[in-house]
Amino acid sequence: MAELTMDKLVALCKNRGFIFAGSEIYGGLANTWDYGPLGVEFKNNVKKAWWQKFVQESKYNTGLDCAILMNREVWVASGHVGGFNDPLMDCKACKARFRADKLIEDFTKGEETGDGWTNAELEQFIADHDIVCPVCGKKDFTGIRQFNLMFKTFAGVNEDSANEIYLRPETAQGIFVNFQNAMRTTRKKLPAGIAQIGKSFRNEITPGNFIFRVREFEQMELEFFCKPGEDLEWFNYWRGFCRDWLLSLGIKEESLRLRDHEPEKLAFYSKATTDFEFLFPFGWGELWGVADRTDYDLGRHQEHSGKSMEYLDPVTNEKYIPYCIEPSLGVDRMVLAFLCNAYEEEELEGGDVRVVLHLHPALAPYKAAVLPLQKNKLGGLASEIHAELCKYFPVEYDETGSIGKRYRRQDEIGTPFSICVDFETEETQTVTIRDRDTMQQERVPISEIRKYIEDRMRF
Amino acid sequence: MAELTMDKLVALCKNRGFIFAGSEIYGGLANTWDYGPLGVEFKNNVKKAWWQKFVQESKYNTGLDCAILMNREVWVASGHVGGFNDPLMDCKACKARFRADKLIEDFTKGEETGDGWTNAELEQFIADHDIVCPVCGKKDFTGIRQFNLMFKTFAGVNEDSANEIYLRPETAQGIFVNFQNAMRTTRKKLPAGIAQIGKSFRNEITPGNFIFRVREFEQMELEFFCKPGEDLEWFNYWRGFCRDWLLSLGIKEESLRLRDHEPEKLAFYSKATTDFEFLFPFGWGELWGVADRTDYDLGRHQEHSGKSMEYLDPVTNEKYIPYCIEPSLGVDRMVLAFLCNAYEEEELEGGDVRVVLHLHPALAPYKAAVLPLQKNKLGGLASEIHAELCKYFPVEYDETGSIGKRYRRQDEIGTPFSICVDFETEETQTVTIRDRDTMQQERVPISEIRKYIEDRMRF
Repeated sequence: MAELTMDKLVALCKNRGFIFAGSEIYGGLANTWDYGPLGVEFKNNVKKAWWQKFVQESKYNTGLDCAILMNREVWVASGHVGGFNDPLMDCKACKARFRADKLIEDFTKGEETGDGWTNAELEQFIADHDIVCPVCGKKDFTGIRQFNLMFKTFAGVNEDSANEIYLRPETAQGIFVNFQNAMRTTRKKLPAGIAQIGKSFRNEITPGNFIFRVREFEQMELEFFCKPGEDLEWFNYWRGFCRDWLLSLGIKEESLRLRDHEPEKLAFYSKATTDFEFLFPFGWGELWGVADRTDYDLGRHQEHSGKSMEYLDPVTNEKYIPYCIEPSLGVDRMVLAFLCNAYEEEELEGGDVRVVLHLHPALAPYKAAVLPLQKNKLGGLASEIHAELCKYFPVEYDETGSIGKRYRRQDEIGTPFSICVDFETEETQTVTIRDRDTMQQERVPISEIRKYIEDRMRF
Repeated sequence: MAELTMDKLVALCKNRGFIFAGSEIYGGLANTWDYGPLGVEFKNNVKKAWWQKFVQESKYNTGLDCAILMNREVWVASGHVGGFNDPLMDCKACKARFRADKLIEDFTKGEETGDGWTNAELEQFIADHDIVCPVCGKKDFTGIRQFNLMFKTFAGVNEDSANEIYLRPETAQGIFVNFQNAMRTTRKKLPAGIAQIGKSFRNEITPGNFIFRVREFEQMELEFFCKPGEDLEWFNYWRGFCRDWLLSLGIKEESLRLRDHEPEKLAFYSKATTDFEFLFPFGWGELWGVADRTDYDLGRHQEHSGKSMEYLDPVTNEKYIPYCIEPSLGVDRMVLAFLCNAYEEEELEGGDVRVVLHLHPALAPYKAAVLPLQKNKLGGLASEIHAELCKYFPVEYDETGSIGKRYRRQDEIGTPFSICVDFETEETQTVTIRDRDTMQQERVPISEIRKYIEDRMRF
């Protein structure tokens, strides 16, 4: 089996309508991407699958959808105004600019990430190991300068500092500031979680690897609140829940690893953190972070806003600021992982190769394709079947080219079921359904197609 | 029946978890709003209902999801850099700032909107009618200054003009610049449309009326491309299609009016435009705009980018820039209209009043509520029914308080069906289902609840 490279994947995404370069006709805008006709369905399915299990079917959780533009004080309280910085160094010789930790990561081929190091430690490592400028090869860096990653803008008519606001760099804070609103209106008791899906923005200096690291991205975050002391139990619960979710949607165990942070490497407010890493074509990359953040976030907002973030236990009458478990995931990164995970160049008998995306039916952009074996005689009946199925899920219709070519086309975009309307269909009121993965066909009554497919979409 | 006021609606939204003021614990951020636990479900349902009919079930249309951050040249080509301005006037006496057209609209109580007037015409009207400052009552305005409504930000490390970009003020341009990408990858023939749902941002000087006019909002836009000459036919098709969509989801005919622009009031590039207006508690407000934009947008991008936007007709071999019909709708405004449309304070026999949201089942945040008549004895069985239904759609569970109170609570948040688990349920394997609108109950087998509800969610 041929290996998947990023070039192959980017080409497939572009050619089949999953993902295009943003603003392409104007030469693009560095590292922005547009989801195409298949990409938007696929990305929406990833979000739906998450919402389904983390909100809709959850006994504990509820949802929110907060504004991207928030009061500046939110980001003062959260620490983003003061501390959400990248450590930048310039090459004095060629003026290229780098993130110090990335220089180290690239130089050590990922052995060291510089995570949590002080500027002095970063500078020292670069000096000690004679790391040179990747652009010009000189060894003449400036010291580290801190660069805030939040995008700034201005609300209102005047561009003065009073009107300066930020595009949110994460969706989490919208949840924290609405903690009491959500608890009050849902009348939930702890433990209880609040989930949100939405766009966030980070002015990364070195975005890259297709949609892996982008400046504009979408997050799926859960903040799960519980009683202090029960937090590690819930941390383990969500760590397992997230892993199960990935496996239930087909992520291969061998492409996934859970990296538990050692106690001495934890952020000061965190009691436990696990990074879920996925094996991308460019190496292991972070996919999901699950962290026990204690009462840090609610505590900061209580202190900064003067509004109580305490919870009154209705049974014990205890009052406390809840502890919080945060599983936080990037949608675009998840989309990329599912695509990499699904891609296969399969050698068939006779030496032919087919490209197939083994996407879980819940995630596939089209759940099925309706293919009349012959366009003129069977197109009408096929169109009727197509129109009926479209009421329930997205279905492709294709009547051009040989049936073999049409199957291949559906394989390449991950359509799990191809419904062939043939010369028996009218009389027997049955079609053949071809399975993308096994390429086996079976005859199914027209009246049962919907159930046949919906049953296989469950996970 | 008591009249709905905006104050009542805002209070219900806040108290029941539909919509909260954004960044509330920090005193808010002017006119931003956060969708709460019910609001996020409701808003998502509005988007799903639109996508269902405008994309999933459509023979013609396909979807996209483009980045909010686009190359600056997009907005030069579209005319937004040069012409997307508000005409502002300051009161010299009290320094308050106004939109000239809003001054006129307020003064004439909506008789004149100043739509499409030149600055000179606006200034003249204000002078002729002795319009005074609404704040201090003086009549001493400056001349009109143009203020660009796009939010500016900077991508990359340096805040210089080379890095200045905008938050998109509309989703439409993402579609136009991807026209060829979408056509190529879907292999569609004209007529064909491209749809997009996403956030847009406009630095409005006078946002207001709750979520009617906000700076950060979500759009549902369709750009429908067809052969020149067939455009007016398609304009009428989509004008009717949009109207049918609204009515099929319960919008009352008497709350809707379609205002066709007179030929002499059309934008220079438009052959026809219709504004759909809805009767909000504060008066008629624009809900949906349907416009025949000819080849204006694609033509601008072809000219500015140098990339061909022509379509080659595979049958006639003609080459042309397609004409475009644009139905464009704001999600938040649609959410507000559905809420206003659904709200009723109903007087019951005996003089009681119940507040009920008559939301279409497809739109209601919860499709059903499972209510055990008695918590201790029936809670287990009710929880099982609840967990099973949650696999298919969002369902509330409530075991607190009298059954009458629980019905009222569901009425107020628009839950169409209340499933009561009573002392007959275990033996007969049936429940009662109460209809929110008629308050009638019927007994339904547990095994048929799902179908009972799903059938009623169709529109």
